[in-house]
Amino acid sequence: MELHAVTDLPEIRPGDDIADLVADRAALEPGDVLTVASTIVSKAEGRTADLEEYPVSGRAKELAERIGAVAGEQKDPRFAQAVLEESTELLIECPFMLTETRFGHICVNAGIDRSNVPDHDLLLLPRKPTESAERIRAGLAERGHEDVAVVVTDTCGRPFRHGQRGVALGWAGMSASRDWRGEPDRDGRELGVTVQSVVDELASAANLVTGEGADGTPAVVVRDWAFGDLEGSDELFRDVEDDLVRQALREWEFEQ
Amino acid sequence: MELHAVTDLPEIRPGDDIADLVADRAALEPGDVLTVASTIVSKAEGRTADLEEYPVSGRAKELAERIGAVAGEQKDPRFAQAVLEESTELLIECPFMLTETRFGHICVNAGIDRSNVPDHDLLLLPRKPTESAERIRAGLAERGHEDVAVVVTDTCGRPFRHGQRGVALGWAGMSASRDWRGEPDRDGRELGVTVQSVVDELASAANLVTGEGADGTPAVVVRDWAFGDLEGSDELFRDVEDDLVRQALREWEFEQ
Repeated sequence: MELHAVTDLPEIRPGDDIADLVADRAALEPGDVLTVASTIVSKAEGRTADLEEYPVSGRAKELAERIGAVAGEQKDPRFAQAVLEESTELLIECPFMLTETRFGHICVNAGIDRSNVPDHDLLLLPRKPTESAERIRAGLAERGHEDVAVVVTDTCGRPFRHGQRGVALGWAGMSASRDWRGEPDRDGRELGVTVQSVVDELASAANLVTGEGADGTPAVVVRDWAFGDLEGSDELFRDVEDDLVRQALREWEFEQ
Repeated sequence: MELHAVTDLPEIRPGDDIADLVADRAALEPGDVLTVASTIVSKAEGRTADLEEYPVSGRAKELAERIGAVAGEQKDPRFAQAVLEESTELLIECPFMLTETRFGHICVNAGIDRSNVPDHDLLLLPRKPTESAERIRAGLAERGHEDVAVVVTDTCGRPFRHGQRGVALGWAGMSASRDWRGEPDRDGRELGVTVQSVVDELASAANLVTGEGADGTPAVVVRDWAFGDLEGSDELFRDVEDDLVRQALREWEFEQ
């Protein structure tokens, strides 16, 4: 397996065609996987916003005050309002907002980025990252690059372990995970529950190549990797019924 | 970045020298990262066990009965006893045991594997995976392969997202994560909290190449990847004080 960063991408602007920009800069081959950071997908889709666009609700004001009191510094209630508008549920309200986005991803502050966007205050996550991936994949096919899978990626933290790692938000041209259940292990015994989240693993692998800083390269070509003949599944985000940690968080309240 | 599976490794037996077996089969170069699945590290370290070695405590009997009642099938209390003996804390007791292992990793059943070991009932995780990684790294250096970092890997599930992905249990020759805080982003602004867990990302990348089934290749060479000049940290496993999800789980009880 090889990973190549796509170099020399320009600063992405609303309306830019990512498939076009990548196809001009990478010698894509059938079977490749292209990972694209959600930051540039959002920029191409015009998912920027300014704090003044968010009239503050009572709920946002209360959240900003609670979080600000814990942090010992004022928090902008307009930011809390933006997070609420991008979310369907708050799993944690304070000391930070852990939310479920409208497309099912769980992350801090609905994934809203305050560092990566010029000329605006906020960069929101793509509205429907799997549809974004499908559009990029279709755009590549139109340019003669058939059979390239696309994964829209982000980085986020997690319980139990420090640090962030790359994760998939959306994908096209492949399943999210592959299912090894029923496959024999090396000694001929059947493997237990083993569903492998390959889109997340591809996002993590790509994140080793992209970096976060000024020389960040937000698109990566993964070559010589194949999903294989296993069954696939497109369920990546857990429902609360299937997630004991979400159930526990529903009953829990932060106390300082 | 390139990943190459180390092929033709034999079935690993207690006392086998993994550094020796890998060095014979892979053309290692300075700067490479070698990932090694914990299954073969455990086998080399003789971390196999049989259920009859675990006299059942009252606590294990109670746990097996509770979990069995939910699952609708009998659970072996000796297995519950083995999980307890490998753990320092149970984060979830039922319907499955989510535990903290003695070296700080949080996973189901203390990572005890019932599918991957011939001639024994159980394969336990390495006792101290970072020490295992250090031994393998030293063994490679003795054979003239200086400057090869080693990551001992496993796969495990996680809250919020379906499926398993590769994670690091131990590492040597590099830091667990790199710290981008203070680095300028593309527009010259300072990046927010961004600590990147590179050992987990390396484990995930390697897991795309290893597979789980009969043709699984438990060692992978990662080439042309560099940690770079960033600050590093070796804190990978969160303490409860730093983990709201662990705090929430402490207060929560499963009800059917």
